[in-house]
Parts: sequence; structure tokens; C-alpha cells
Amino acid sequence: MTAFLKALSMSKTKTIARLPRGFQDRGRQDILSTNALIEKISAVYKLYGFDPLETPFFEYTDTLGKFLPDTDRPNAGVFSVQDDDEQWMSLRYDLTAPLARFVAQNFDSLPKPYRSSRHGYVFRNEKPGPGRFRQFMQCDADIVGASSVAADAEICMMAADCMEAAGIKRGDYIIKVNNRKVLDGVMEVIGLGGDENAAKRLAVFRAFDKLDKLGITGVELLLGEGRRDESGDFTTGAGLSSIQIYDLKRFTEFSSRCATAYYPDAYRLRNNTQTMEIPYQTIKNALMDIGENQTINEGLLEIEQMHRLFSAVGYGEDRVRIDFSVVRGLEYYTGPVFEAELTFEVKDDKGQPIRFGSVGGGGRYDGLIARFRDEPVPATGFSVGISRLQAALTALNKTMQKPYGPVVVTVMDKDNTAAYAKYQTFASELRQANIPAEMYLGDAGFNSQLKYADKRNSIMAIIQGSNERDNNQIIVKDLIAGGELARSAKTLERDAYLALKEKSQIIVNETELVQTVRDVLARYGQ
Amino acid sequence: MTAFLKALSMSKTKTIARLPRGFQDRGRQDILSTNALIEKISAVYKLYGFDPLETPFFEYTDTLGKFLPDTDRPNAGVFSVQDDDEQWMSLRYDLTAPLARFVAQNFDSLPKPYRSSRHGYVFRNEKPGPGRFRQFMQCDADIVGASSVAADAEICMMAADCMEAAGIKRGDYIIKVNNRKVLDGVMEVIGLGGDENAAKRLAVFRAFDKLDKLGITGVELLLGEGRRDESGDFTTGAGLSSIQIYDLKRFTEFSSRCATAYYPDAYRLRNNTQTMEIPYQTIKNALMDIGENQTINEGLLEIEQMHRLFSAVGYGEDRVRIDFSVVRGLEYYTGPVFEAELTFEVKDDKGQPIRFGSVGGGGRYDGLIARFRDEPVPATGFSVGISRLQAALTALNKTMQKPYGPVVVTVMDKDNTAAYAKYQTFASELRQANIPAEMYLGDAGFNSQLKYADKRNSIMAIIQGSNERDNNQIIVKDLIAGGELARSAKTLERDAYLALKEKSQIIVNETELVQTVRDVLARYGQ
Repeated sequence: MTAFLKALSMSKTKTIARLPRGFQDRGRQDILSTNALIEKISAVYKLYGFDPLETPFFEYTDTLGKFLPDTDRPNAGVFSVQDDDEQWMSLRYDLTAPLARFVAQNFDSLPKPYRSSRHGYVFRNEKPGPGRFRQFMQCDADIVGASSVAADAEICMMAADCMEAAGIKRGDYIIKVNNRKVLDGVMEVIGLGGDENAAKRLAVFRAFDKLDKLGITGVELLLGEGRRDESGDFTTGAGLSSIQIYDLKRFTEFSSRCATAYYPDAYRLRNNTQTMEIPYQTIKNALMDIGENQTINEGLLEIEQMHRLFSAVGYGEDRVRIDFSVVRGLEYYTGPVFEAELTFEVKDDKGQPIRFGSVGGGGRYDGLIARFRDEPVPATGFSVGISRLQAALTALNKTMQKPYGPVVVTVMDKDNTAAYAKYQTFASELRQANIPAEMYLGDAGFNSQLKYADKRNSIMAIIQGSNERDNNQIIVKDLIAGGELARSAKTLERDAYLALKEKSQIIVNETELVQTVRDVLARYGQ
Repeated sequence: MTAFLKALSMSKTKTIARLPRGFQDRGRQDILSTNALIEKISAVYKLYGFDPLETPFFEYTDTLGKFLPDTDRPNAGVFSVQDDDEQWMSLRYDLTAPLARFVAQNFDSLPKPYRSSRHGYVFRNEKPGPGRFRQFMQCDADIVGASSVAADAEICMMAADCMEAAGIKRGDYIIKVNNRKVLDGVMEVIGLGGDENAAKRLAVFRAFDKLDKLGITGVELLLGEGRRDESGDFTTGAGLSSIQIYDLKRFTEFSSRCATAYYPDAYRLRNNTQTMEIPYQTIKNALMDIGENQTINEGLLEIEQMHRLFSAVGYGEDRVRIDFSVVRGLEYYTGPVFEAELTFEVKDDKGQPIRFGSVGGGGRYDGLIARFRDEPVPATGFSVGISRLQAALTALNKTMQKPYGPVVVTVMDKDNTAAYAKYQTFASELRQANIPAEMYLGDAGFNSQLKYADKRNSIMAIIQGSNERDNNQIIVKDLIAGGELARSAKTLERDAYLALKEKSQIIVNETELVQTVRDVLARYGQ
């Protein structure tokens, strides 16, 4: 034992193995299905002409900016460290702010419009709590340098394609579209326009963004003095007057009225070109009821243009829909905003229905790159919340089969060097034939080795005792058939029993190892 | 323009778009080839029965421990933040320390031996400098719960398989194997045994680890008072006496003598079972020359056992070799240590030879999990430095062709809503046929749109002016043939010119869009 090892083992105060709150370990199935999901989404992005880009996890804090809704958290919800040259760096909290930095830094050399896609983990210093993670995966696509809402419309249609590529059936999701200009116009109407009200407007948007979660009563508190949550924590409100709150409540009701006018039956397919004109008038009339202005009209015009493009390309209201309740919590949006929502329900282990809600969103952010440059640079994009979408897909596919483990070569006579080398050679031969295999490397006896193979969900174990070795033979044990045999030995008829027994254990010559293993794998479609 | 956008654009102090030192952006080719590399390595790990695992980027600082060689850096080279409950969290600096935490936390439920593989970015707060990155990718495989050197031997053979799977030819890499016990024994012989000398031993190991980079003179300085590098920074030395340094220099010479005895011709294939006995005796004799003890003998015995297994499975000295100069800079190794080294040279842009050296390494770390538990848990593993290996592969494959961009649907008569919708429909039809395509979304004129397509390296542009529209036709422009035409118009004979012209531009009915595009893609093997 080395001195280091000795010192470590003898140390009396043991470190406790634990994870920081809000972080999680992930196992094989989760990793493989997430990888598959990212591949599917990336394939859609590629079809739309997006080029992969990767930015590092760290950015200078000032280049990222602070656009998160978590104003009450340390560093406004961002993890930051000070570098040895005194500059502050932060872990990215989304994939959009780093893109803005990248585009500004490489502006002249990029093709314009610049279409780029990215995926990776982002970090938020959220308040830790059950199911609230501080590291999660996003997969984004953005178009920089296209000012037309045709770009926004394309992004929305692509978002619909992403949902279907991920395996969400049409009708089980919806891409909801709104425009910040409508909301901004409403703010102006109720006296919250102008630079001096920027903070209040943001607080209002963030309150609205929680409508799904908190209901109108919770939102009303957030618009006024503030709200205390179940844990006792207090969120400061927007501090609006009761008249302003009253007007906004009317707007909320109006939004839901419009949504109803659009979609009397949320899941019934409709011909959108026919229904277009009616709701647009409904909206205009209803808005004039509250008050009307230039900003609202601009927003409505853009919504109408996008709707026309959806119709022209054949993306009906079963895929993409106008919904005036969509807000998005981030500060930097300047025009169209969109959200991908899952509309199906699954039951949890207790039979309670779960809705997954939003699994992605985005919008136009014409100002973000302007932070670095002298002119605004138009940009729009969409982000799929991979971690959330994956959770929903896992809930949909609960019955997914546990993947099989490798072939396990069991070890007897461990101290017999020649025998031991032979076991390793068996494993090596299988691998050369592209069959996952391992020699058992622990210290346990034969029965424990078979239990180990079961725990790995292996289909087969390879066995060679001294008898077999003397005859250059091996036993190929079909563990699935063997398990069946053990469970049903008493109930089987003699012939069936013998057949299963024969199937569960095959003695062959060493030279037939690979072929026999292949035959048994084929029994289970491998 | 929204108030937010206005405020941003009008702000006079612009943020400078820049990246923190030691971090980099990565483009399409780099991302795609790295993904392909990870897939190849992961496939080898899977063949050897390793199960994917992913741990989060953050761990509590005390669970990670401080085992990095960067003792002079802030937080010993680790990026750390304090959580809101006052506990310190750190970004992982490798994938081994988090595995140790995971295993300790889930010990009872894991199959043992536990074989797991992981890949992902790790972070080191290194001194920033050209080519020194603070975020880089690793891909690891570890066996926990196997005390036998058979596990180490298997890891080494797998490391060789990984290099070949990555596309490194046999002879262009070597897996070098040593044992920390030999080094520890030598330390004891020269009077650096015992807990009280732990720090000195570590300093010696780290000095040795730099032999390749600094040469024996540089290492000698690091063993003594210390060394000032080119930038003027001073690294404190191990502070050994001149007698100790003399003995270690003898050991270094001895190491290289042994290596020579083993491998008179480093790249010539040899039958290792025949050459085994000679160098082992050479080593023993040479070591007795310096002094011999129990620890050295244990180390040599383990090396011999591993060598036997390599021979038995047919991994000759063209793949795996004993090399007494291998040290590894990390503190936690307790037995066999290994390193994957690339042995080929490439020329840089100035014709200077570059050697890539080590692209991975690992070893046995029986004490790391013992930090959390009352008994040592044997463990061994290997880590491929994906970023470094990828850099070497890129240098090998300099002539790799730039990938083609999407089909670009050009836009004329932008304000004609019906025409515009048609362009979007063309792009949509191509995507439905699984052909990457985009409608041009910028504001530039027709010629700039074709230049854009060139910049994207697109094979084709789709064009529909008002003439074509009236006849329900489109022009499919082969941009590669078109470029050839422009370059060689003057030198071509009439027939060849006409043929190329015909090839470069095809007028077809709208309904033939997909088929025509497919035909043109096929010209370029797409």
C-alpha cells in the first residue's frame, strides 16, 4: 500500500458523498435517449440550413448581460467567478446571449443572414427545490440578419417539425405565437410606456408568464404589492396601481376571449385560411375597447403576416396558433414571441394527471447584438428545452425495455495463469466480432458472477471449467432462457421443459464461440 | 421600435464582444468531427461492457478534493463558487473525482465490478496562454471493484483499441505502462518515504511528468530550488538535496536505458514473449544498482503480470509497452499508470515538425473512493483527451473537404405575397424530401443572394423570376458548374462550353423541383 493510499484510508473524518442541490446524475437510458433526441432535433435544424456552432461555457459577465427573471437570486441567477485578472466571468444561462457575443465578434466574416444551431447545458442559479434543476440542456437555432417576420414564421414552422421529429404526435403539441409589440402597446395604453417604466413592464411580463402556474389571483398579487409562496419566500410585485391592474385583468380576459374566438375546439382541425379574418377583426374590435395605438397595430400586422405564411406553406392551426397569452419571461424580446407547448396528459405513479406545458420557446431579439454594435442587428430564434422534452418523452414511453448488457465471460481457477489468459481471449474475440463482452474482473465466486450478469441484464454468460478446458470446449449459457426455466420448471410439461433446458445451455467447441453467441443474440433480436 | 430596443441601441458605451482567455468558439467541422470521435471511442467502451454515466458539472468542493498539479493557481486550479447555503461548489476538473463521489453515494445498488464510461467538458483554471485551454473534453472508462491488475491490463488494451478506432494507425501510437509502486519504492530508497515527505514526492512526480517538455535540465531545476519559465513566472521546486537529485538523475538514466533495452528499434514489431525475460532481468539488475526494496518488487511483479496478459491476448509491443518514464501528474494514483502517446509527426504551416505526445492516460486509484468510505475500494480507469486527440486528427486530415451547404431558394419580388409564399413552399418541399434547404431571408438583391449561397458552399440555388412564375417553372442553378464556367469560359472549346453551360442551369416545371435537385446533388455524390 502506498503512503498516499495509507494516509487516505486511515483518515478518520470521511467526506460525505453527496450532490449539490439542483444537480443530478444520469444513467444509461437517460443519456442514450437524450442523445437520440438531440440528434433528431439537430437533423431538423440541418434540413433548414442551420450550421452547428459551439460557444464555451464561460463568457465575460458583461457580454452575457443580465436578462434573467431571477432578480432576487445571487448575481441575478447567474453563476459567476472572478478571473485572476479581476474580470468577472459567468456560466452561460442560455444559448442566445453567447450567440449575440459570437456574432458581434465575427460580424464581418459571417454569411448574412447567419443561421446557426447550438446545443448544450446552461446553468441557472435558481432557488433549489424538488424538480428544479440548475443545469439543463437546450438546443437552439437562430437566424441573425433577417428583419422580415418570414424568418420568425419559418422558425415557428421548424419548431413544429422539431416536436414531430422528437416523436410528439400532431395534436399533442402546439406552437403558440404572440408579439411583444401587442403587449408593449397595451403597456403604453395603461400608462406604462417610456424608459422610466422599463423595470415595471418587465415585472408585468414576468407576472403574466406565470399565469399557467399561479392563476389570475397569483398574477394579480405579482402585479401589485407582491406574493409570498408556499415556502414563505416573498417575491416583490410590479407595484402597479389598482386601475392599471384592472386594465391588465381586462386584457387577460380579452386574451382568453380571443383565444376562444380562434379555437372553439382546441384539438379539432380547422381550415385556417377560412377562420383567419374573423378572429383578426375580433381582436381589433376588442383591443379598441381597451384602447388602441400604433404599437399594437404594428404587432397585429406582423401576426397577420406570419399567419398568412403558415397558411401558405400548409401549417394549420393544429400545429401553429396565435395565442395572445404568450409572453416569455426574458427581457430581450422585441417582436414575435413563440412557445412550444405539449398538450397531452400522462398519469404519474399515483394516477394523477401531469401536464408538461412549455418545452421550448423563443422570439425576435433585435436589440441583443446592438449592445455590442452601433446599429440594431435583427435576430430571431428558438430554443428546445431538451431536459424538459426528454422528461415528457420518458413519461410517454414508460414501458421502454431496459437495454441488454454485455456478454459476461465468467472466471474459474483465477490463479491458473493460462486459464485466466484464455478467458480474456474469449472476451477479446467477441469484441473483435463487434459483440460487447467482458471478462468478470471481481473476486466473487461463480454463482455471484452469474448474479452479476443478471444485474447487468446480460443475455449470456460464457463458462469454462477445467473439464471443458481439457476438451477445448465452452458452455454458452442463455440467461434469459435460464431464468424462464427457473421460474417455470414446476409448471412445464416434460417436452417443453427439456426444450427450454436445451436452449438455456449450449456446449460447443471454443472455435465456435463467436458463431454460437451470435445465434443466441439473434434469439432476442440483437 | 420597442422602448427596450431603443434604450439598447442608443446606449453610448458599447460592450466589447470578446471571449475570456483560454476559451474558444467551435464551428461546424470541429463539432462534427469531435462528435464522430466521441462516438467511435464510446463504441469501443460499449464493446468492453462499459455503461454510460453522466455526472453534473458542479460538485461540492470537498467531494472533488484537490489533486491537480496547479498548486500555484487560484483555488489550486479549480473554478469554485459559493452557494447560497455557504457551501463551496466547484466545476469538475476531471471525470474521475466525480465518479468516485457517484460510486460512494450509490455503492450498494451498483453491480460490482462497476464498469462505467463518461464524456464531457472539464475545467481547469490554468494560467491562460496560447494553445492552453481552460475547458476541454475528456472521454473516460473506469472499472471500480476489481483489485486485480487484469483490470489494468484490460484498460490498456482498450486504450489501444480506442486509438485505432479513432483512426490512428498501429505504429503511430503507443500505450506506455508503468507502476507508481516502482516510483514510490525509488522514493523510499533515496529517503523520501513516509507521510512527512508526501508533498515532496508529489513535486518530484510532477517534475518527472514534465521530462518530455522541459528536458532533464528543466526537471533538475524543478527537483531543486525551482525554475523560472519564459514568461518570467517562477515554479517552486521540490527542494531536494543534491545527493537526492543525483540519485534521481541516475534513475532517469536507468529508465531510459531500460526503455532502450526493451525497444532497440521503437517501431519494429517484436515478439514480446521472447523479449520479456531479458529486460525484466535488466531492470532488476539495474534497480539493485540503485537500491532495491519491497515496494519496487511489488511494482515490478504487477508490471510483469500485466505484460503476460498483453502477450496472451496478442497485444504486442507495437501497441502496449512498459516504459519506466511514465509518471502521470495526478496525486491519486496508487499502482499501474498508463499513457497513450502519439508517435507520428506532422508539419505545421511553416514546415516545422509537431509532435502531439500524450492524448490520454490513467491508472489505478485505490484510495479515491476510500475518502468517502471506511475501506479502500479498488479502481482503475483511462481518460482520452478528446480535444487533444481531435487536434492531432485534424492535423492528419488537413485536406478534409469543407461540407456542402443547403440548397438556397433565392427571392425576387419580395413584396408579392403570393410569390413569397411560393418560395417558402419550395424550401418546405425540399425539406420534406430530406434535403437541407432554406429560403433567403435577408434584404440583399439577387446577385448578393448568389454570393450568399457561395459563402454557404451550397451546390444549388433555386430561382423563380416573374417569367418562370407565369409558366409554373423554376431555374435550378448548379453553382459548382457555374463557378467552373465562369473560371474557364475563355479557355474552353465551343462544345465543352455549351455542355457546361447546359449543366449549370436547368429550367424545369415546379413539380419537378425535388427530382431535379436530387439529380444535381447526385452529380457531387450527395
